[in-house]
Amino acid sequence: MTATDPVANLQVLIRCPSVTPAEGGALSALDAMLSPLGFKVDKVKATAPGTSDIENLYARLGDDGPHLMFAGHTDVVPVGDEQAWSHPPFAAEISGGELFGRGAVDMKGGVACFVAAIARHIERHGAPKGSVSFLITGDEEGPAINGTIKLLQWAAERGERWDACLVGEPTNPDKLGDMIKIGRRGSLSGKITVHGVQGHAAYPHLADNAVRGILQLTQALMDPPFDGGTDNFQPSNLEVTTIDVGNPATNVVPAKATASFNIRFNDTWTAQSLQQEILRRLDAAAADGVLRPGRAPLKYDIVWAERPSHVFLTRNNALIASLSSAVESVTGQSPKLSTTGGTSDARFIKDYCPVVEFGLVGQTMHMVDERVAVCDLERLTVIYETFIEHWFANAGL
Amino acid sequence: MTATDPVANLQVLIRCPSVTPAEGGALSALDAMLSPLGFKVDKVKATAPGTSDIENLYARLGDDGPHLMFAGHTDVVPVGDEQAWSHPPFAAEISGGELFGRGAVDMKGGVACFVAAIARHIERHGAPKGSVSFLITGDEEGPAINGTIKLLQWAAERGERWDACLVGEPTNPDKLGDMIKIGRRGSLSGKITVHGVQGHAAYPHLADNAVRGILQLTQALMDPPFDGGTDNFQPSNLEVTTIDVGNPATNVVPAKATASFNIRFNDTWTAQSLQQEILRRLDAAAADGVLRPGRAPLKYDIVWAERPSHVFLTRNNALIASLSSAVESVTGQSPKLSTTGGTSDARFIKDYCPVVEFGLVGQTMHMVDERVAVCDLERLTVIYETFIEHWFANAGL
Ligand SMILES: [Zn+2]
Ligand SMILES: [Zn+2]
Repeated sequence: MTATDPVANLQVLIRCPSVTPAEGGALSALDAMLSPLGFKVDKVKATAPGTSDIENLYARLGDDGPHLMFAGHTDVVPVGDEQAWSHPPFAAEISGGELFGRGAVDMKGGVACFVAAIARHIERHGAPKGSVSFLITGDEEGPAINGTIKLLQWAAERGERWDACLVGEPTNPDKLGDMIKIGRRGSLSGKITVHGVQGHAAYPHLADNAVRGILQLTQALMDPPFDGGTDNFQPSNLEVTTIDVGNPATNVVPAKATASFNIRFNDTWTAQSLQQEILRRLDAAAADGVLRPGRAPLKYDIVWAERPSHVFLTRNNALIASLSSAVESVTGQSPKLSTTGGTSDARFIKDYCPVVEFGLVGQTMHMVDERVAVCDLERLTVIYETFIEHWFANAGL
Repeated sequence: MTATDPVANLQVLIRCPSVTPAEGGALSALDAMLSPLGFKVDKVKATAPGTSDIENLYARLGDDGPHLMFAGHTDVVPVGDEQAWSHPPFAAEISGGELFGRGAVDMKGGVACFVAAIARHIERHGAPKGSVSFLITGDEEGPAINGTIKLLQWAAERGERWDACLVGEPTNPDKLGDMIKIGRRGSLSGKITVHGVQGHAAYPHLADNAVRGILQLTQALMDPPFDGGTDNFQPSNLEVTTIDVGNPATNVVPAKATASFNIRFNDTWTAQSLQQEILRRLDAAAADGVLRPGRAPLKYDIVWAERPSHVFLTRNNALIASLSSAVESVTGQSPKLSTTGGTSDARFIKDYCPVVEFGLVGQTMHMVDERVAVCDLERLTVIYETFIEHWFANAGL
């Protein structure tokens, strides 16, 4: 039967050099795996001013519910220093039990395994009683403007509805079975500008040193902590990512200073309530502070980054249990249900259906010599196949 | 008699466009005022690699002690927006009782008045019993490398020795008679670089955000205060003049951050003891701090600016009393004996003889429409003439 071998699937995909925004043949290769299995495959091109055109793919097997979606991406990050790779990054060579190549774990490997899993399921049981679809973007590693968001909209406008989604990103820190992601922190960024008064360093009282202002504001953002964490989330954390003044003159105190920050926040907050809390802290620090004793309130403004990522937590127990039991049956390990780490395209999918994430071990993602253990590909395929069985059994209840 | 009118002297000097490093004819004009009074005038050119050649002037009347020096500069800062001036900056026009022009108060006005004062003294009493000299640089508003320092060395090598010096910089904040400077704070600058570890904003524990490090170090420099001031000096004050990171990526925490600072310090400290205190604070903050809890000590380095300005306080009571009584006799006001403000060339002169500073009202210095009240020129001339009389009377005791 076609496409039942995850290693062969992955070698085909890695050999397509699909560095964002290039399609590189990867989606056509996927089409060639899915169409023979009975999937109806659509290529969906998305465009936006100022961005590269992006190829995406949507494929569905079946017409009825329940409807399970597998989501992921075939685009990959650049190879970095190609000379530093021990095997060429698009050759998909196997050495010492490992398959080398860009995208091996993030996440052509996950795609290859799910294709093999559904192929095996069809081989053994026929098509599932319901529908399975693939939602695959070529813009996950890029600006993500012409990717998952638009593909979801495109499908929803055609009447597609899903009951659950599995994202195949690499979720395991150390070994297969460590961790399922059942939610993600939100992410919010902003840039503060302080407007002081330039002056001579010997007469600081006649000036208003913008560095004092920006230190006072950033200090208020970093301390105290925003929360202590919640049942399912680690504490929210804010990092000031840059402070810039650009004053070359030792004798001059500057009028202007800027700082940017990014906060990863948990379900104590919504993006909106967090913006309010940040403004409250900034206003309090602007009005009073040890670095500007006896001064008039500081003048500052803030610009928020355009789209915050909203926090989410998946509460669909049947979905989580289907995946968790599949992982445990193959690895013998009960996976941690986690919400740690960065954002993923699950933040878009969660507006359409419950979503969980499980894939390979992420240790080498984005690095030189990205690689995956061949036996992990086989084991992940079994996990995915078991999950499909469990989920359709549970969804039928 | 020649040169007895400070207004005429000042108009001649302002009409020489001597923006640093240009001599602009100003020193030649001064030569033309002093030579007829009996001064032996030397033009002294100073050069250094990477700097503009600078003309300076040294003039002495008399061969014996006691020896009084008047020190100042004829170079001026740029005019800025020339269209914004209500009178051309090098025209020396008088309007509404004020004389307009770049250098009117800083400090061609002071030079013009001292020339008039010594001319009047000679007219009334003949040459003083002792010596009077002018030490005039063309590099006070520039890098000050080819100016007062070198002119003092040049004169000292020829055997010149002085008993006291009056610097004619504008010392009065509001009105003539407010303030004599009897010392100056020191000035010390440095630049700190923090070396962290770059990483993803979602995994800050795997990185070491250099912004946290630089905030921790600058915080330690700014708080607590270095001292509470002394009998003659205001508290030492540190300003962070710039912080720069230059990280454009919202999702990345940066590995490197820099900050520069300048501290104006009083006689609690020497430049050396202050450097030790700053290093002590930085090392303590690097080892521990709320912004990097539980972290290994921060890696940082510091580069000190080349030449600190040393703090000094003039303790020659006869000199201070001669000047103070002269001011009071003309203005009816007992001038404040102050050590406030920036550095001046007095910091170099104090290594050769006691030095005090008194000149015009500084409000318009370095600004568009720099100007001086004509009556202040006359009154400062009388103050200087009275000071010359008092000083030689006291010095003869
Ligand atoms: Zn990925
Ligand atoms: Zn000056």
